[in-house]
Amino acid sequence: MDVYEALYTTRAMRRVRPDPIPEAVQQKILDAAIRAPSGGNSQTWRFLLVDDKEVLGRLGPVYRDCLGQVFTVFYGDRVAAALADPDTPESVAMLSMKRSAEHLAEHFEEYPLMLFSFALGDPTGGSIHPSTWSACLAARAEGVGSAWTSAFALNVAPALEILGVPEAEGWRFASCVTFGYPTGRWGVAPRVPVHEVSYRNHWGTPVGFEVPAPLWSY
Amino acid sequence: MDVYEALYTTRAMRRVRPDPIPEAVQQKILDAAIRAPSGGNSQTWRFLLVDDKEVLGRLGPVYRDCLGQVFTVFYGDRVAAALADPDTPESVAMLSMKRSAEHLAEHFEEYPLMLFSFALGDPTGGSIHPSTWSACLAARAEGVGSAWTSAFALNVAPALEILGVPEAEGWRFASCVTFGYPTGRWGVAPRVPVHEVSYRNHWGTPVGFEVPAPLWSY
Repeated sequence: MDVYEALYTTRAMRRVRPDPIPEAVQQKILDAAIRAPSGGNSQTWRFLLVDDKEVLGRLGPVYRDCLGQVFTVFYGDRVAAALADPDTPESVAMLSMKRSAEHLAEHFEEYPLMLFSFALGDPTGGSIHPSTWSACLAARAEGVGSAWTSAFALNVAPALEILGVPEAEGWRFASCVTFGYPTGRWGVAPRVPVHEVSYRNHWGTPVGFEVPAPLWSY
Repeated sequence: MDVYEALYTTRAMRRVRPDPIPEAVQQKILDAAIRAPSGGNSQTWRFLLVDDKEVLGRLGPVYRDCLGQVFTVFYGDRVAAALADPDTPESVAMLSMKRSAEHLAEHFEEYPLMLFSFALGDPTGGSIHPSTWSACLAARAEGVGSAWTSAFALNVAPALEILGVPEAEGWRFASCVTFGYPTGRWGVAPRVPVHEVSYRNHWGTPVGFEVPAPLWSY
């Protein structure tokens, strides 16, 4: 697969089939992940695959509690605004994202594979998130959908306990990614265009070009 | 370019030519970046390209001061250990990385383009670093080398002042990436293999397979 197809179409795929992810595909996902850079090339990361239904069954209620907090606390204002005026494009997108996220929570135990990433001594996340994003891109190349969620961070202790993470050694939860073969189609997600979120040489100075439509599409 | 070639060969490229990065390539880099996911699809990010030598000239001394702190404070123990026993593979790698990082600092003003990424309300970095990593992968596809550095975080205030970042609005520095056409060759960086950094279902439980050599190579 061309790198641009992966970069443009790796969007959250939360509706997936329960079919297992073959071990050869898991190897490709993790071997791509560890090629990413890390600060000082320290590689102080751990990748924990979860496919045991008993473990997912214990994590599920924890996740649903965390996601509830995400939408009441973290996105509380945006949800309230969307519900108050549900027909604007922003509100439609917000409520669609919320439904999709809740689908993930409700079906947590049905995902065939999850990847939990952990880092040691990485205060900015810059030494762990590139590797996890590489895992998602490699999965895309293999036809496997992914959905990245940080929601466990809202109450991470129970998840760390279930997974046996040695917090006392300094290991910190970075992200959880669900994997699965999607039921829907791949596509390019709409985004605020480059020139509205980019500057040149100083904050607020136009970047100097406009990109009104995606530079890659099917 | 195949997605795996990008994932396996996008390693820190700090030795680059001063030739400018064409605007069409800059557009590809940023348009790929904004396709990445962000929490709740909030896209609360800003991308600041810097190619003005006057701005780079003001940032350079700040960066060199920060990098000095990285190697005395953050990696002080590793540097001391490497200097004490410089012939082990770990020491050779550490000292090589240090020389390469110092090359970047010494030649800071000579890079033709830099990308500063900023995020709003993203405590884990999970909503900004995937976009920046996508920028690096797109650059790789265009033959442009990148080097990701977080060193400004050691003393970020002067850099934010120079770039005019409205900290009071909540915008936070996430990363700085240098770009340039490399003087050296692309290659697959050596890494600790997957089975040494991965587990399955519980911390410490073997992942169940070994990947002794990179699954992609030239």
